[in-house]
Amino acid sequence: MCAVVGVFGDREASKIAYYALFSMQHRGQEATGISSADGARIHLIKDRGLVTDVFDEESFRKLKGSCAIGHNRYSTAGDDSILDAQPVFARYKLGEISVAHNGNLVNKYEVRNQLIKNGAIFQTGMDTENIVHLIAKSQEDSLEARIKDMLTKIEGAYCLIIQSRSKMFVIRDRFGIRPLSLGKLKSGGWIVASETSAFDLVGAEFIRDVRAGEMLIFESGREPKSQQIFEPDYRPCAFEYIYFARPDSIIDGKNVYVKRLEMGRELAKESPADVDLVIPVPDSGVAAARGFADELGVAFEMGIVRNHYVGRPLLSQLSR
Amino acid sequence: MCAVVGVFGDREASKIAYYALFSMQHRGQEATGISSADGARIHLIKDRGLVTDVFDEESFRKLKGSCAIGHNRYSTAGDDSILDAQPVFARYKLGEISVAHNGNLVNKYEVRNQLIKNGAIFQTGMDTENIVHLIAKSQEDSLEARIKDMLTKIEGAYCLIIQSRSKMFVIRDRFGIRPLSLGKLKSGGWIVASETSAFDLVGAEFIRDVRAGEMLIFESGREPKSQQIFEPDYRPCAFEYIYFARPDSIIDGKNVYVKRLEMGRELAKESPADVDLVIPVPDSGVAAARGFADELGVAFEMGIVRNHYVGRPLLSQLSR
Amino acid sequence: MCAVVGVFGDREASKIAYYALFSMQHRGQEATGISSADGARIHLIKDRGLVTDVFDEESFRKLKGSCAIGHNRYSTAGDDSILDAQPVFARYKLGEISVAHNGNLVNKYEVRNQLIKNGAIFQTGMDTENIVHLIAKSQEDSLEARIKDMLTKIEGAYCLIIQSRSKMFVIRDRFGIRPLSLGKLKSGGWIVASETSAFDLVGAEFIRDVRAGEMLIFESGREPKSQQIFEPDYRPCAFEYIYFARPDSIIDGKNVYVKRLEMGRELAKESPADVDLVIPVPDSGVAAARGFADELGVAFEMGIVRNHYVGRPLLSQLSR
Amino acid sequence: MCAVVGVFGDREASKIAYYALFSMQHRGQEATGISSADGARIHLIKDRGLVTDVFDEESFRKLKGSCAIGHNRYSTAGDDSILDAQPVFARYKLGEISVAHNGNLVNKYEVRNQLIKNGAIFQTGMDTENIVHLIAKSQEDSLEARIKDMLTKIEGAYCLIIQSRSKMFVIRDRFGIRPLSLGKLKSGGWIVASETSAFDLVGAEFIRDVRAGEMLIFESGREPKSQQIFEPDYRPCAFEYIYFARPDSIIDGKNVYVKRLEMGRELAKESPADVDLVIPVPDSGVAAARGFADELGVAFEMGIVRNHYVGRPLLSQLSR
Repeated sequence: MCAVVGVFGDREASKIAYYALFSMQHRGQEATGISSADGARIHLIKDRGLVTDVFDEESFRKLKGSCAIGHNRYSTAGDDSILDAQPVFARYKLGEISVAHNGNLVNKYEVRNQLIKNGAIFQTGMDTENIVHLIAKSQEDSLEARIKDMLTKIEGAYCLIIQSRSKMFVIRDRFGIRPLSLGKLKSGGWIVASETSAFDLVGAEFIRDVRAGEMLIFESGREPKSQQIFEPDYRPCAFEYIYFARPDSIIDGKNVYVKRLEMGRELAKESPADVDLVIPVPDSGVAAARGFADELGVAFEMGIVRNHYVGRPLLSQLSR
Repeated sequence: MCAVVGVFGDREASKIAYYALFSMQHRGQEATGISSADGARIHLIKDRGLVTDVFDEESFRKLKGSCAIGHNRYSTAGDDSILDAQPVFARYKLGEISVAHNGNLVNKYEVRNQLIKNGAIFQTGMDTENIVHLIAKSQEDSLEARIKDMLTKIEGAYCLIIQSRSKMFVIRDRFGIRPLSLGKLKSGGWIVASETSAFDLVGAEFIRDVRAGEMLIFESGREPKSQQIFEPDYRPCAFEYIYFARPDSIIDGKNVYVKRLEMGRELAKESPADVDLVIPVPDSGVAAARGFADELGVAFEMGIVRNHYVGRPLLSQLSR
Repeated sequence: MCAVVGVFGDREASKIAYYALFSMQHRGQEATGISSADGARIHLIKDRGLVTDVFDEESFRKLKGSCAIGHNRYSTAGDDSILDAQPVFARYKLGEISVAHNGNLVNKYEVRNQLIKNGAIFQTGMDTENIVHLIAKSQEDSLEARIKDMLTKIEGAYCLIIQSRSKMFVIRDRFGIRPLSLGKLKSGGWIVASETSAFDLVGAEFIRDVRAGEMLIFESGREPKSQQIFEPDYRPCAFEYIYFARPDSIIDGKNVYVKRLEMGRELAKESPADVDLVIPVPDSGVAAARGFADELGVAFEMGIVRNHYVGRPLLSQLSR
Repeated sequence: MCAVVGVFGDREASKIAYYALFSMQHRGQEATGISSADGARIHLIKDRGLVTDVFDEESFRKLKGSCAIGHNRYSTAGDDSILDAQPVFARYKLGEISVAHNGNLVNKYEVRNQLIKNGAIFQTGMDTENIVHLIAKSQEDSLEARIKDMLTKIEGAYCLIIQSRSKMFVIRDRFGIRPLSLGKLKSGGWIVASETSAFDLVGAEFIRDVRAGEMLIFESGREPKSQQIFEPDYRPCAFEYIYFARPDSIIDGKNVYVKRLEMGRELAKESPADVDLVIPVPDSGVAAARGFADELGVAFEMGIVRNHYVGRPLLSQLSR
């Protein structure tokens, strides 16, 4: 999973990014980070832990500027977690850059090996590092042109938010595999986030989904500029609707809860079961089980309890 | 709320108490404690925080003995939380004693003032301290007789688990206000807990509820001895069924989830509403809303999402 | 060891107590606590850990009032450390009381057994609890009279600071075993502390030592009242000069550093050694070694290094 | 300052590195890290905090292999501390590499700008990243040749410990600016550390200093291979003797304590002072003040006390 957020044109950008990441904590609990740009410099705080663990009031004094991008990292076994937090910051030929990435590149190892062959070093296991290298190695003159050059070299799922000292670039892959939506803040600023539920907490208005294959460029004193970089070939990840996303999010025009209900009904039509009762596995299974029971015309009951304190480490088993 | 547990006759008594408290964490998150008795001494660990925060493997090396009692404390604003953790341990005339108490004494201040007038000191705000004082001040010869003497002087709701260096006493008030159940461990030992859900996690078999007005005495090498101390006058707290207890617990013969369903149906009969849709406030409202919708014959949907990360402190509000 | 402090008549009383305890951290690192009195109530915060761990800005919002007393606890193996933090607070017949105690009562167990025989309960292992019980059990009408009554029943070493909701009582035992000094704050308020080094950090002026056998009573709108309760029989603990106290403290008119130098010289006279070089064990041995070397007329060198990071837990040993 | 350590040929390599870093904690408290190599992979743990905070028993299960290198980072204001911990790990053309560096490169920005111009990205502010880039960009075939190539491009102070999956390289700059010593472990393995005091804690025998301009190569089944890469031009940093190093360390044949004494005497000869008494500022000033007083023939006293609990954050000042 993972979650990304970008805020542009609001003097409380990093605080808004924080609240947005908090509302998307379900998409990743291992690590989190925010970088902000104040025109002259990019500032970065990232660490292992939950959003509420990593940031405090002091953080926002450091994360100055009216543009902020952020990331929640989903736990993947075996990684060096501190090093693998995002955004990834780098100094490169055109100055400073910070990248937050949600997705997986299918040609990650080919690209990485090619870059390494040419003398690059990789300090982490994240494909985000590929992206930064490709931008830094590009021969193009502007960051925009370098990003486009980079995009021709990566394949797979990505929602990218890229920040320079004064601009913000947002790209969603041609398949629209991961969700990404655009909202407007009350201040007139802009917000881009993996899930629309983030807009609710910060009081932003949902404008529209970022389109598959679209790039949005945010620059001070202008409306966001949209470019259709790739022909869209919409093939969203079914797991967003099934499991990942919050039921109150709207992805590509569809409310997740309603979608789950419908998928439950669909399942009942395709594979009806001869049962008296349907019991969901909470929380993500509730809506689908509801639809399934509804379509079958049988009872629906909450038969499984979720312990809200699990997740914290338990002691070793009893000796029996 | 609060939760209590008592384990008797198992060489892993304190570890079983730990798992039982973990499964009853929803009844109190402010503080927790376990005391164990090994025949010669009572050992005690208690502190602020969740069960998984307070205890570690080292704890169980300290909490020796085949009898352990434990407590989860529910947060009450304004208390000195470290001091108000339970069980309450004391040295008194007959040796050592430890008391865990779930409930509220209605004559707490009268009893306390009388004790203070006679020279007692109170170090905490808990009515559990009243109970220990009354036992210590009694002129009876045995602990059992002193406990009975004490019980004539307190009024209100209580589930009490009292531990000496070799025995365990369990008492439920005559009204059966708070739940308390008896289970049997695979080792042949016994467990008493506020909710039967605790039995599931430790592999205990549910035997029966402790009766309103009953005292159980556990002693090594004997079956638990039951005495009906008070005439039962059963008036359980409705909030256990409505809100406090886990839906998978069985209180006085009634499954909490089923009871919630029935109360929802009852409500629909008493106060039918002209609505198209019923939406529960999760988690405790789900079953009642289900019953309510069912009885009305209208749709039921999960319209409110519970954020599992709330509870941790958020930063101060955005400045808008 | 342990350290005690009392502050009276300063609206920042609890903060001054905090700084004083910080400067006396060397006298006890296991637990610390401060209680404050605002005329109407006594407020208490205590916990395991260093002064800088236990208190934060929030603490001082709670610890209201112009009188505060505090305590640093020295680690003694085998105690239940949370419960054994001081000050000890209690509600008793005349209201609320808080007691901080530095010392050891030699008749602790006799007094305790007598109190238990008469129905008292002891929740901790501290002899401070004896003192509170004796005050509560006294038949005298005023707290002052009850304290004097209590003092006739305890024997041993004690520097006591006792706080009611509006007064503060300070007592040093007849032998002057532990140090205790009186200082004046810039605000016109008063401070009593185990070591004069505490005065330096809070900008207080050293007035004089509390005399062996003296009681000082602080009350609003009056000068401190002094009473010689016991005939002094001055027999101070040699370890204060040798090891416990900070070298910059002045105890009973003698600077600790100078005293250590003199004891080193004395030792050289009593037991001269045929050596070429004297090496101290830092830090407390430095001055004595200096005096020893000086008197012998031989070289003095710092041959042992103190690692400032020891004290934190190290891992288990290497397997060799 | 900073401290580095390298251990080769001991199956408890990472644990020995840990103890060595612990004994050199005075050289850097901001961050610490250890990487180990087991022939097939390099494992890395690094984080902000003291050695005793960052590592636990679990760490050593992860840090497998008979070669380990480590680093303590000295606090430098304004850095992004998590990212700037060492060792720096990277995947590059010849496999995996890890580098620990103590020193400062004077041509850091030139080298960095040149690398950036050629498409490199820099994720941290550390000159250690320069070193890794230069090794990765070198056209040489072996790591040894690439390291030598890199060394022709950097200028300044450096003690470098570089680890591949099976070898360890140790280099000290031609000026010998920072100290570095070689020791032998009881197991027959080798240890290289910034200060000889590290050898004492792990039971290693001091063999000799690494020479200015020398490279040592450690490989399994062979004696360490020494090469004099640069003509030595010995100009050690005076601050090691004055302030940085532990007094019990021996740097380039000179005990630090003795050196401090001598410098004090020297100072007295160069700039005699008309004083009655010399008081050192502890701890590093003690020996020099001793020598100064000695040479002048005047008294020496410990007039300043070091509070061992300072360093922890104190609250805001009293309002006076």
